[in-house]
This record gives sequence, structure tokens and C-alpha cells, in this order.
Amino acid sequence: MAKKNAFYAQSGGVTAVINASACGVIETARKHKDKIGKVYAGRNGIIGALTEDLIDTSKESARAIAALRHTPGGAFGSCRYKLKSLEQNRAEYERLIEVFKAHNIGYFFYNGGGDSQDTAHKVSQIGDALGYPITCIGIPKTVDNDLPITDNCPGFGSVAKYIATSTREAAFDVASMAKTSTKIFVMEVMGRHAGWIAAAAGLAKEAEGDAPHVILFPEIAFDEAKFLKRVDQSVKQHDYCVIVVSEGVRYKDGRFLSDSGTKDAFGHAQLGGVAPMLANLIKEKLGYKYHWAVADYLQRSARHIASKTDVEQAYALGEAAVKLALQGKNAVMPTIVRKSNKPFRWTIGEAKLADVANVEKKMPRNFISRNGFEITDICREYMAPLILGEDYPPYKNGLPAYVRLKNVAVAKKLKGTFKF
Amino acid sequence: MAKKNAFYAQSGGVTAVINASACGVIETARKHKDKIGKVYAGRNGIIGALTEDLIDTSKESARAIAALRHTPGGAFGSCRYKLKSLEQNRAEYERLIEVFKAHNIGYFFYNGGGDSQDTAHKVSQIGDALGYPITCIGIPKTVDNDLPITDNCPGFGSVAKYIATSTREAAFDVASMAKTSTKIFVMEVMGRHAGWIAAAAGLAKEAEGDAPHVILFPEIAFDEAKFLKRVDQSVKQHDYCVIVVSEGVRYKDGRFLSDSGTKDAFGHAQLGGVAPMLANLIKEKLGYKYHWAVADYLQRSARHIASKTDVEQAYALGEAAVKLALQGKNAVMPTIVRKSNKPFRWTIGEAKLADVANVEKKMPRNFISRNGFEITDICREYMAPLILGEDYPPYKNGLPAYVRLKNVAVAKKLKGTFKF
Repeated sequence: MAKKNAFYAQSGGVTAVINASACGVIETARKHKDKIGKVYAGRNGIIGALTEDLIDTSKESARAIAALRHTPGGAFGSCRYKLKSLEQNRAEYERLIEVFKAHNIGYFFYNGGGDSQDTAHKVSQIGDALGYPITCIGIPKTVDNDLPITDNCPGFGSVAKYIATSTREAAFDVASMAKTSTKIFVMEVMGRHAGWIAAAAGLAKEAEGDAPHVILFPEIAFDEAKFLKRVDQSVKQHDYCVIVVSEGVRYKDGRFLSDSGTKDAFGHAQLGGVAPMLANLIKEKLGYKYHWAVADYLQRSARHIASKTDVEQAYALGEAAVKLALQGKNAVMPTIVRKSNKPFRWTIGEAKLADVANVEKKMPRNFISRNGFEITDICREYMAPLILGEDYPPYKNGLPAYVRLKNVAVAKKLKGTFKF
Repeated sequence: MAKKNAFYAQSGGVTAVINASACGVIETARKHKDKIGKVYAGRNGIIGALTEDLIDTSKESARAIAALRHTPGGAFGSCRYKLKSLEQNRAEYERLIEVFKAHNIGYFFYNGGGDSQDTAHKVSQIGDALGYPITCIGIPKTVDNDLPITDNCPGFGSVAKYIATSTREAAFDVASMAKTSTKIFVMEVMGRHAGWIAAAAGLAKEAEGDAPHVILFPEIAFDEAKFLKRVDQSVKQHDYCVIVVSEGVRYKDGRFLSDSGTKDAFGHAQLGGVAPMLANLIKEKLGYKYHWAVADYLQRSARHIASKTDVEQAYALGEAAVKLALQGKNAVMPTIVRKSNKPFRWTIGEAKLADVANVEKKMPRNFISRNGFEITDICREYMAPLILGEDYPPYKNGLPAYVRLKNVAVAKKLKGTFKF
């Protein structure tokens, strides 16, 4: 039993490139069959481990695994489930060890954001605490770009490319319509806590007057009067105004704009988007005709317009995770280290999971202009390389040909079930 | 003055490929300089003619004009403005003749949907009615795909490709999340009167169980109980449910779902989307966690994922318009004539503007399944060829490089202004 199997799982919100990391893990493991046995994927993340619901990736062809590189979503299913601490829920850890033992698992690769790195970190401790040696490696992933130490997070670059492209395209549209019809376009983007994604829209602007004319960040308290004044100025100057708003924008008192007391016909609180709320505000106060869009999942699943840089980094981090494991490293996460901006060069580094877990990287205040509505050159320099390059998926019948794996279950070896 | 100039204008909602038609018109006119002088574009559609605000396209380089082929929006500005009849507003027509005479315009190319073809038709009548000979050619354009006679309308194929792609991508995302989080995804698409665009989402489905699981068409009265039952079945069977809803869906009594009495905090009617409304309904009645998106302008401006077939047809129709004019045809519109589905072959035909103006092509009832939630094979056979092929724009710095023309104004020759 010298050769151990590996466990790989996807966690948290999925992205256009998390499967590229899976591809990197599995292809690299397959190159080291002398040291790593099979790669078992957790069906729906860590839940697959807790419930002994493992997927045997060795049943997938090389071609299917290669196609993961261009397939969005989480091919093995993801989950939103955070392990409690060892003290709070020892049974969960004992169960994990039971499953790992039963399937001879010696490597644990966990692909996710901040909460997931926390889970990976906790699992890494069971070697010492519960006497089961396991090599734990975290693999970064999050469209929120909020993991510390790594230069950026896989998933973010592709969302950034999608949002900047969509902003530019919608701006060309509304500019055409502005004379007699729509003058306002509001696009809502993800980002509950930080304005990374909203900021990416700023990349669409190349010259004075270009869209977006207003970006609303969660970092900047919403000031209605100042906002309306700027919108009105933009319309008077350019005939139209494109607004990109982060879902997490709040009033000074901390309330979300999207939660501003709207009631439906039955008097129930209406959970609306912030985009329609702002559009209605502008219509009411300034009288301009509007359109609005909410990109939601479209932005993080848009593999058809993924950033090539992002895909390459996602793959490289999966590959690096396996290499770190083979080097005997434990409780670490490979990172992106930026070497230069022009030309963009980067390499792989590593961080301790203890330093990554539960640490949220905020967007620096100097990424936002003094007026609070734009990005700065410093922000632009940081973000511009992350959207570089196109990496189109193959198409069949006019649509992207994404792979659906067979996801064959590994035969269960344990009796009983586990309630998570 | 034997050689006449041409007037070209864009009208109504713009698309990802209306500029490809402009490109076809201008490039073809440039090849026939012996017969056509300059191409003057109306700034903001017909308003540019009424106000003598003409753009001299001869000031644009061949390269800039070629780039129109891959640039979304309306490069010269569009408008929503319908000419009244000659009897109702003779002054407008007299003004048009005044402007056309002043600038030696003998060809009128009008690029738009049903209302716009009506305008082109009216203008074609001024030759006889007011004694000013002018050759009028309509060029079809509308994402709504509702012009008669032509097999399909440029603009629709690209929206269809965007919507089908986005549906597939979002479905991969929500399928990954369904175990512990989001089970419902609702995407709202354009289509106030007809379900052409919603139907296109059905192209994403290749096998039983694939998304979309529910399509809501404006043609089918919304039945809440039946809808909720189907959503619940989908979740029970597949773990998740992807719903694509046309903005124009109505209750049996004719009310729009998006206009269902919602009030904002101040008691004003809230103009919300139908997507959040349905998402809230599902949450309330079935308890499932949801996400929703409203594509809005993103869908019709997404040149980055345009259908190659659509781009080619848009260009060919612009080219054909000029050729028809040179053949001495008047009051006609070039059309797409489908020759075969597999392989997809089409050619250019022509229709009389009198037969096109104000006639709306409905989606055939046999395009919608008996249960009202899916498309039929007949619909699929019709739509599938329209999304074939990719036609990527060039990229610069990671973003599509779209052209912005100089749009140099032609010197005014008339005194006075015209109030439209």
C-alpha cells in the first residue's frame, strides 16, 4: 500500500476555469502513476468524502479529461459546506479518516476560495491530531479574487474579461439608441463584499468619454445626490450613461441598496436586484429612459469568452498542486507570483494554508478614483494582464461543446451512512 | 448630376450585425462609383435626413468600413421614429425631398424592422406623390425575427447563439451547485410579442434532462400551478431546473407577469423583470434557492459570440440592397431564401415593401411543444442553421477591438431647422 490514491474536490461557487484546474490535477497525477494511484473526485465537494460518494476519474478517457480544460462549472459537483473545527465536530474528521483509510487515500486536493482553504487547512491537521498521515494541498479558485498572498485567483480573469467585454458591447448599443430612446444602461455584477469584478468593467474604457461612466463599488458608500449628478452630467456630455454596479453596494448605514424596503403586491419584502432599483431611481429623478441587465451566473460560467491567461493559470495551479504533493509538501497552496506587467510574466509560488484560510484580500483603496466612480491607473495595470488572450472552446452545431463526464461511482466499502 | 448620392440609415433597436449590413452597403456602393456617388449616412436614422444631419462615409478609410463587419451597435446612431402617412404629415415628406435634393440623393437605403420597412415604403411613394424620383430599398434587421417573407432576420441568429450558449453555460454552473445551494436558475430574454428568442434557448438541449427544463413563451398564457409543478418535477428528477422566460409572458387575462402590481417603498409601481418575479414565486411556493439573470442589451450586442451565418447574411443583404438599386428596383427589400437545412444553403430573394410594412410574422404554434414548455423538432430544424459558425472579432488588450467611425458631418446646405 505504498502507493496512495488521491482525493480531489471542488468547493464553493464554481467558475469558467475550475475544471481547468481539475484537468491539471488529473493529467499530472496520471503522469506519476508510480507515486499516485487513482484520483477519486468527491461528488459535490467534501460532501462526497463524508458520504463516501467518490467518483473514479480513472474511468474517464484522456480526451474527456482534456476537455475539462474548456468546460465551465464544476464537473464533479461543488458544495457550500464548511467543516467545523476539530473540537466542535470531531465526528466529521473521524469520518473523513474512515473514508480515506477505506480507499487508501493519501493526498487531499481541495479546489476553492477562502472557506475551502480553511477546510483544506483543517483536514491537513488531522495527520497530527488523529494520527492519519495525509498530504493536503489547496488549489485557489474564486471569481471574487479575494484570496491573500496569490497575485490573483483563477476564475477572476475570465469574469473580468466577460464583464469588460459586455460593458463595451452594451455601450455601443445604448450609444446608438440614445438620441430618441434609451439613455441609461445599468449592469449589475457580482461582488458582495469587494468591488474586484465591478472594477474590471473599467477596463472597457480606453478614452475619455468611453463607458463605463459610473462604477459603483461596495467599498464606497452610496451617495444618491452625487450619483444622480454624475449620471446627469454623463448624459448631458455624452448623450448616454453606462453604469456598472456591484451587487454589494450599500448605503452609509450599511443597508444594501438591493434591500431597500421594496414590497411585492402581497406586502412581502421583494428581493430585487440593485440594477432595476437604480434604473427606477434615475427614471424617477432625472426622467431618462433606461435598460438594465443582471449578469449573475452568466458572468462566471461564460467559458466561451474565458481569458487565456486565466485558463493557463488555472491549469498550472492544478498541476503545481500535484507536484507540491509529490515533493512531500503539506498544508500549502500554490499561488500566482507576478514577475512583470509588460510583458506579463508570472510563475508559481506557494503559501501556507494557515496563512490563507479565512483571510480576505480587500481591493486596495487606491484602485478606486478619488471621486469613487472610476478605477485608477494602478488598478488598470494590475487587472489588464489578467484578461489577456482568448481560449475558445470547440464548437459543435454552433454551440460550445462542453464535456459531461461519466462520473462513475467508486464502490462503497463502508457500512452505514453519514449525515452531514 | 446623372450620378446620384445614396442615403443609408439605421433604425429601431440595434443588433450585433446591423453594422455588417452597413458594411455591405458601403463597400458595394464603393465598387460602383460610376453609378453611386457618395454614401451619406443619417445620423440617428431618419432624423438625420429630417434635420439635414448627414454623415459623409467617404471620409472613412476602407479599413474602418471593413471593421463595421465585426462591430456591434449602430455606427451612425439609430432612432425610434416612425413617419406618419403622407396625408397626416406632408411637411415631413417635403422636408425629406428638400434634403435629398440639396444633397443630390437618389438612393434611399433603410435598415430596420417592421416599422422601419413601413418608413421605407412611405418614402418610396414620394416619387409618384411628390414628383421626386428616388430609389428606396429596405434592408431587414431585427432580433425579433418577425419580418414576413424573409426566412429570417439578421440579428436574430446572433442573439439565438448568445442565448443558447448562455443557457448551456449557466446550466453547467447551477448543476454543480444544486446539491447544497442553488437549484433554480431563471434567465429573462427579449421578446415582447413573440417567443423567437426564448425558443432559441431550446437549442442548448441535446439530450433528455438537459437545460432548459422550462421555456415560457409569450404565446402561451402563464399557468402558475402547471409551471410550479413542472419546476418541482425537474428539481426532483435532475436536482435543478433552468428556466428561460420571455419578457413578454402574460397571464390569461393579458397582464404581463413583469407588471404584477409590485410597489416600491414609496408605493410607486415597480417595473421589475419577470425573472426575479418568477424566482421569488418559486422560492415562496417550493422553497428552492434561486439565481436569476436578465440579459437585456447584452444579448443583442454580443458581437463577440455572433453567428457566422448571421454576419454573412447581414452583409449579403446590405450588398444585395445596393445591387437591387442598381438594377433599378424600387420599393423592395432583399430577403433570405432558405434552400436546404442540411447542409444549410440560402440565397437572396426580394420582397415588395408594401408586403413587408407593418406585417408581423408570428412564431408558428407548432414550434412550441404541446405542454407549452419546450420547442419542437420543427422549431429546432428551423433555428439550428441560424447559429452555425463563429465569427470572432479581432482582440486588442484582451477585449474586442470595435471600430468607432469619425462620423464627419456633411456641410449643411439648407437654411433653417426642422423640428421632428
